[in-house]
Amino acid sequence: MTNQIENLSSAEVRALCRSGAFTGATSGLAKGRVQANMMIVPREDAFDFLLFCQRNPKPCPLVEVLDPGQFAPRCAIGADLRSDLPGYRIYESGVLAKEVEDLRDYWRDDLVSFLIGCSFSFEGALMAGGIPLRHVDTGVNVAMYKTNIPCQSAGRFSGNMVVSMRPVKSRDVAKAVEISGRFPQVHGAPVHIGHPEVIGIMDLARPEFGDAVPLMPDELPVFWACGVTPQYIAEQSRLPFCITHAPGKMLVTDYQTA
Amino acid sequence: MTNQIENLSSAEVRALCRSGAFTGATSGLAKGRVQANMMIVPREDAFDFLLFCQRNPKPCPLVEVLDPGQFAPRCAIGADLRSDLPGYRIYESGVLAKEVEDLRDYWRDDLVSFLIGCSFSFEGALMAGGIPLRHVDTGVNVAMYKTNIPCQSAGRFSGNMVVSMRPVKSRDVAKAVEISGRFPQVHGAPVHIGHPEVIGIMDLARPEFGDAVPLMPDELPVFWACGVTPQYIAEQSRLPFCITHAPGKMLVTDYQTA
Repeated sequence: MTNQIENLSSAEVRALCRSGAFTGATSGLAKGRVQANMMIVPREDAFDFLLFCQRNPKPCPLVEVLDPGQFAPRCAIGADLRSDLPGYRIYESGVLAKEVEDLRDYWRDDLVSFLIGCSFSFEGALMAGGIPLRHVDTGVNVAMYKTNIPCQSAGRFSGNMVVSMRPVKSRDVAKAVEISGRFPQVHGAPVHIGHPEVIGIMDLARPEFGDAVPLMPDELPVFWACGVTPQYIAEQSRLPFCITHAPGKMLVTDYQTA
Repeated sequence: MTNQIENLSSAEVRALCRSGAFTGATSGLAKGRVQANMMIVPREDAFDFLLFCQRNPKPCPLVEVLDPGQFAPRCAIGADLRSDLPGYRIYESGVLAKEVEDLRDYWRDDLVSFLIGCSFSFEGALMAGGIPLRHVDTGVNVAMYKTNIPCQSAGRFSGNMVVSMRPVKSRDVAKAVEISGRFPQVHGAPVHIGHPEVIGIMDLARPEFGDAVPLMPDELPVFWACGVTPQYIAEQSRLPFCITHAPGKMLVTDYQTA
């Protein structure tokens, strides 16, 4: 069954999500297709959030922004954003209020959906460049941490960045920067290398999102801006209402990775 | 005097504009600094226009978007957007209502300013690459045309694109594409090459903005997306109110061209 799921097309993955048959993480599915983080806010907050993305392109590289009330994106033919992700989180006053597998009962005509690039896209390029990724090899989610790196504020949206961490052998660090730097649409070059405490991370073994992976003696921790940042910003800003994808449960688009 | 003005720094050019001593076009001033087109809309239209820019990055590559009511941009230290451009246009219901040299009497706390990349930035790279630019050599403004190329709509903002045209020798066309393609923040690669009638331009000798330049027999007309597009969009969309820079009279920022 695992093998079968891994061979499905992007549209087939979305159909499985829509029917409720698949509610897992999307890492490794529909290889070669861009996956997207999602953030949905009411129309009244949409200018501020779009401005936040414009000012913080590393954590929030936009793939697409839909018109208010719309849920059929251009990047995924025939998709319905209300049902075609494996899972969703609903936040109220910056606090996680509910985790659901379908949004159709919660949809409103004033909701604006933002699709944000995901580092799954450049991981393929890193691996093709000869840089192994431990979380992929061991089949766990990437480790993600809250930091003290401030984002540029926009209206009510302000706070610090979330980063993902991948251990990279010292000799490969420069190559990892060069390869990921070629993908400015999906977080680009790292925001920090080595010394996690400098960016406010006190214990690599305890990520705030995803799963911890061990760091070997000949490796440095390399940190990239992460598309989970909007969820943390919603929390820090006590945003009255928003909906996001559930961690690791992305929209699988039809776009090809570069 | 001409020589003196050409040697001024970006801050000195802005100070001359602020005092009213300079009201001309900014082409060729403060060489090596990014110049920006400007579009100012009320807060209620700002989400739609920001979305329009996000969906149409070739004509509308964003340099910076200011918070509502703000007029001190990050890209030009000490600048005041209300006075530091040589000239402004005020549009009402999509029609040019007034051309002024200072906005301070017209400023409102709900106005949102958008600064948009300008092709002056890649012209330096073209010339450095051995591609002469006739409008620069002859000291006139670049030729700009309304086209039939549709922009992607966003809310009330919809309509066709404005392009700038530069004659390029056939043997240099590929090089011109490569060089300008390296500047995605300032319009990027051309949107059309040769055959102006295909994009709705019936007479190259009669540009809608700027000045006509002759085309030699060994040259092709090469068309780039143009930052005057928002003014044409305002016209086509019958936008209730907006303010723009006057054609050719840009904000000279402190940012270095690449």
